[in-house]
Amino acid sequence: MCRWLAYSGSPILLEELLFKTQHSLVDQSLHSRLGATTTNGDGFGVGWYEAEGGPALFRSTHPAWNDRNLHDLAAHVRSRLFLAHIRAATGTAIQQTNTHPFRYGRWLWMHNGLIREFPEVKRELVLAVDPSLYASIEGTTDSETMFFLALTFGLEDDPPGAVERMVGLVEETGRKHGVAHPLQMTVATTDGARLWAFRYSSEGESRSLFFSTDVRTLRAQHPDNPRLAELSDESRVVVSEPLGDLSGAWNPVPESSYGVVREGADELHPFRPRRP
Amino acid sequence: MCRWLAYSGSPILLEELLFKTQHSLVDQSLHSRLGATTTNGDGFGVGWYEAEGGPALFRSTHPAWNDRNLHDLAAHVRSRLFLAHIRAATGTAIQQTNTHPFRYGRWLWMHNGLIREFPEVKRELVLAVDPSLYASIEGTTDSETMFFLALTFGLEDDPPGAVERMVGLVEETGRKHGVAHPLQMTVATTDGARLWAFRYSSEGESRSLFFSTDVRTLRAQHPDNPRLAELSDESRVVVSEPLGDLSGAWNPVPESSYGVVREGADELHPFRPRRP
Amino acid sequence: MCRWLAYSGSPILLEELLFKTQHSLVDQSLHSRLGATTTNGDGFGVGWYEAEGGPALFRSTHPAWNDRNLHDLAAHVRSRLFLAHIRAATGTAIQQTNTHPFRYGRWLWMHNGLIREFPEVKRELVLAVDPSLYASIEGTTDSETMFFLALTFGLEDDPPGAVERMVGLVEETGRKHGVAHPLQMTVATTDGARLWAFRYSSEGESRSLFFSTDVRTLRAQHPDNPRLAELSDESRVVVSEPLGDLSGAWNPVPESSYGVVREGADELHPFRPRRP
Amino acid sequence: MCRWLAYSGSPILLEELLFKTQHSLVDQSLHSRLGATTTNGDGFGVGWYEAEGGPALFRSTHPAWNDRNLHDLAAHVRSRLFLAHIRAATGTAIQQTNTHPFRYGRWLWMHNGLIREFPEVKRELVLAVDPSLYASIEGTTDSETMFFLALTFGLEDDPPGAVERMVGLVEETGRKHGVAHPLQMTVATTDGARLWAFRYSSEGESRSLFFSTDVRTLRAQHPDNPRLAELSDESRVVVSEPLGDLSGAWNPVPESSYGVVREGADELHPFRPRRP
Repeated sequence: MCRWLAYSGSPILLEELLFKTQHSLVDQSLHSRLGATTTNGDGFGVGWYEAEGGPALFRSTHPAWNDRNLHDLAAHVRSRLFLAHIRAATGTAIQQTNTHPFRYGRWLWMHNGLIREFPEVKRELVLAVDPSLYASIEGTTDSETMFFLALTFGLEDDPPGAVERMVGLVEETGRKHGVAHPLQMTVATTDGARLWAFRYSSEGESRSLFFSTDVRTLRAQHPDNPRLAELSDESRVVVSEPLGDLSGAWNPVPESSYGVVREGADELHPFRPRRP
Repeated sequence: MCRWLAYSGSPILLEELLFKTQHSLVDQSLHSRLGATTTNGDGFGVGWYEAEGGPALFRSTHPAWNDRNLHDLAAHVRSRLFLAHIRAATGTAIQQTNTHPFRYGRWLWMHNGLIREFPEVKRELVLAVDPSLYASIEGTTDSETMFFLALTFGLEDDPPGAVERMVGLVEETGRKHGVAHPLQMTVATTDGARLWAFRYSSEGESRSLFFSTDVRTLRAQHPDNPRLAELSDESRVVVSEPLGDLSGAWNPVPESSYGVVREGADELHPFRPRRP
Repeated sequence: MCRWLAYSGSPILLEELLFKTQHSLVDQSLHSRLGATTTNGDGFGVGWYEAEGGPALFRSTHPAWNDRNLHDLAAHVRSRLFLAHIRAATGTAIQQTNTHPFRYGRWLWMHNGLIREFPEVKRELVLAVDPSLYASIEGTTDSETMFFLALTFGLEDDPPGAVERMVGLVEETGRKHGVAHPLQMTVATTDGARLWAFRYSSEGESRSLFFSTDVRTLRAQHPDNPRLAELSDESRVVVSEPLGDLSGAWNPVPESSYGVVREGADELHPFRPRRP
Repeated sequence: MCRWLAYSGSPILLEELLFKTQHSLVDQSLHSRLGATTTNGDGFGVGWYEAEGGPALFRSTHPAWNDRNLHDLAAHVRSRLFLAHIRAATGTAIQQTNTHPFRYGRWLWMHNGLIREFPEVKRELVLAVDPSLYASIEGTTDSETMFFLALTFGLEDDPPGAVERMVGLVEETGRKHGVAHPLQMTVATTDGARLWAFRYSSEGESRSLFFSTDVRTLRAQHPDNPRLAELSDESRVVVSEPLGDLSGAWNPVPESSYGVVREGADELHPFRPRRP
C-alpha cells in the first residue's frame, strides 16, 4: 500500500535515509520488495522537527522518485526527528491533503495499511471524532480518520492507549458491518520528543515493520559514509522495509506490538485493541 | 470568490465561450470585473454532456489561463450543455476534489459564494447528508456539501424545492451558531436535460448573475463569428459576469430568484428558503 | 524507458485500448512486462484526430494510472486515429513539454528508447534542425529533437526517408563522439491519415514492438466486448507490448523495419539509416 | 511580467519577507501595483544559501499564494542570502525548468522583463552560449538564455562585465532582426557571497526596482516585529516593488545602473552594454 520511514537521533540530512542508502525510501517508491505493491508513486510526504518549534511538512502528489524539490530539500534539511512516507493509494483521491504525514499541532502521524470497506464505515467513524476536532480534518483517507480518532481518544496524553481505543472502535465498527478483518496497519506517530511505532492487523498478519538494531550496525553497512559515523548511539530508524541487505542490521517489530523511541532505553510492548 | 458559466443550446465548441468572447471566462480568471476578487486562479473545471450518456469532467488545480490541456480540449470538445467554473478559494484546500463542477450520477453542480463560518457548521451540515450519499463526498468544500444536501432533499425530483430546503437548513444552522448572514450563492445545476440557475444570499445582496437575452443579441456582439450564427434561437448562456460589453445583451437574474433553461420557454421564479 | 500505443481504424473510445484490455496501456504504466523499466510513471500523453482538423493533445506529468482526467477523457473521446504514450524518463525533466506525443502542425510523433550520451551530442543535433523550425521546439528531450530532425529532413513529404536520414545523422554524430550504439528507438508518427511505426536500434536489439494481426484476433480475445465487434476489419493497433496474452493475436515488428498503416493493404519494409 | 526579491544580511526566516510584510512578495503575486500585470501566478521559486555549501532551490508551477509547501518552508528555512521570484509568463511554457531562480554551480539568477521577439532571435543567442555550458540549459525561457550567455561571458569572474556583454549581444542580435528595443530587464544574481542587481532596458524605461534604504527604516515600518529588530545594520533587500508604504524606506535603483550588496559598503554604478 505504502512504505514509510521514521528517524530519531543525531541531526542528519534527510537525504542520508531518503536517497543515499542501498534500498532507500525513494528507491522503494519504484522497487518495493516487501510491500503490497511494487510501485508507491501516488505522492509522498516528509515531516520534520528542528531544534525547537512544531513540525514542518512537505507533501506532494507527484512520485517521490522524480520530484526535484524533494531532492533539493533532502540535501539541505537537517533534522533530529522526521517521518517520511511514499503512498500507494487504495481508492481515495491523489491530493496533498490525503498525503502522509498528517499534522495536528505538534503531532505527526503516518500509516501503511487500510481500513477495509472504508466507504461503508467512514460516516460512523468520522462521527466518533470529537466535534472540536472535526473541522481540522482536511482530507478523505482512512489514515487521517484513524489519526483524528486517536486524537479524540487522548493521543496527546497516552499514545498507546489512544491508538488501542482507536483500533478497538475501528474493529467494532467494521465487524458490525460484516467485515472479517477490519484493519491493517503500521503506524508511526510523534510529538517531536518521542516516537511511537505500531504494528497490528485484525487478521494477525501485519505488514512488515523493522527497526534498526543499533546505529553501529547501520555504520557497518555504510563504512564509507562519514556522516553516519557521527551519529549518536541512540539514533534509530523504523521502516516498512530494510534500507539495505546486511543481515543483522534490522529487527522485525513483532506482530501486535508497539515500540517507543526516546531518550534513554527504547521500549517494546504488546499491542491490544481496547473497547473505545 | 469564483466565476462560472453555464451553456445550453446548439452544440458548440467549448472554446467559443471559454476563450473566444471579448471578456471570456478564461479572461475573467485574470481580470474579473464584478467578482469579489480580481483573480480566480485556484483551479478550474468543465463538465459537459454529449448527445447521450452522463457528463464528462475535466478539472485541474492550475489556473485556467495557463492550462494547455484546457486550451486543447476546449478547441475539440463540442457540447450542447456544459458548465465551466474558475475558482478563487475561500479557505479550503486547492485540490481537484474541491474544484467545481461536482458530479453525482447524471448531475452536475457548481457554486459561487460561500457558507459563512463553514468550519463552525460543517459537521452539523455533513451529518444532515443522507448516509447513503455520505461516502460519495470527495472533497471538503462548502459548495460540495450544499450539493449533497440538495441531493438529500430531493434534487433529482424537484430541484428548486431541494435547493430551497438546503438553503433553509444552511441558514437555520448558521443562525443557531450566531451567523447573521449564513449563505451567499449563485448556483447552477443540471441533469443533462434541463439547467437551473439560482441567485440568493441571506443578506439579500447576492453575487452578480446574468443570462443572455437571446442568442440574436450574442450574435450581434460577434458578427464576425460564423459559429454563433449557427446557434439555435433557444441557445442560452448564464454567467457570473457578462462575456462582453454590448448593452442589452445581458439580463441580470433578479435577487432571490431562479431560472430554468430547457426546451420550450424558459422560466424565472422567486426563490424562498424552506424549512428543511 | 516508455511504452506506447497507436491505433488506426473505426472510431472507438480511447478507453477501449487505454483501460479496458487485459494488459492495457494504463496497466503497463504500473506493470510493464517487456519494458526496460516496470514502472512508467513519469507522465503520459494522448494525441487524437477527429473526423477533420488537426490533432488534439492531452498531456500530464502525473502517472497515467492515477489521473482522473485521463480516465474521464478516455471514456468520452472517440477517435479513428490516436497515439498514447506513458513515460519513464531517462534524465530530462518531468514536464508537459517533454511528454509525448509531440505535435507539429498536423503531425504527431512519439518515441520509446533514447539517444545515448544525449547531453554530449545535443547541441550538434539541435543545430542541424532547420532554423525556421527551431523556435517550435518546446521541450528538452532526445525524442523531440529526433522529431524536429525528421521534420527538417522532409517528414511531411517522405516519412520513411526522413526518419532514415534522421537516424543516419544521430548515428554519425554519436559515433563521432565515441558512442558505440548511439540510438535505440521505436517510433510512431502520423499526419492524421496514415500511420508509420519504426523499430530500429544501432545495436540491432531494438525494444519490443507489436502490431495486431487483425481485428478478428482482438475480437476473439474479448468476445464479450460488443464495441470491438463493431470495428472495421482494417482497424489496427501497434503497441510496445501486447495488450493481452492470447497467442496469435500479436505479431512482432521485425528488427530494423517499419510499417505503414493506411487505407488499403498495410505495408512492412526494411529500415536502413541513410547519410543525412 | 514578474516580481522578485533578493535579501542579504542576518539570517532570517524566509517568511519574514515572503509573507509577513504589508505588501509582501506573495501579496504581490495577487496584487502587484507596479508590475506589467496585476497577477503573477505562473509559478514561483526560491533559492537560498545556508552557512556553507551551494544554493538550495524550491520551485513550483503553482501560484505562490496558494502553495502550502511554500508556506511551510518559508516558516522553517532561515537564510542569510536568498532570491525569490513570482512569475507572469510571457509566452514560454509553465514548467519548473522555466521558473526562476536558475542555478548553475554556486550561482543563482533571476529576471523580470523580456527579450522582445525572442522566438526570432533565440537560435542565434543559444548558439552563442559556450558549448560546454549548452547541455546545462534546462528550460526554454529568454531569462535562462540570458543567464547562460552571462556565464559564457565570464559571470563567475566579472559579473557586471559579463552582464554588460550579454546585453550587448542581445541588443545587437535584436536590432539585426529589426527589433527597436530588444531588452527589458531587472536582474539579480549571486554567488552566495555577493549580490548584484541590474536595472536596464533598451528603451531607457526599465521596470521598477528598489532597495531598502537601510535596515533601520524597515524596522521603523514594522516596529512590532521582534525579528527585524535583530537584523544587522548591513541587511539589505532589493525588490521589484516596495514591501510597504512607508515613505523613505525604499530607494529606486536609477535607470541603467547596477548595485552590489556585500560585506562592507554597498556600491551603485552605471550600467553600459558592451560589444560582446
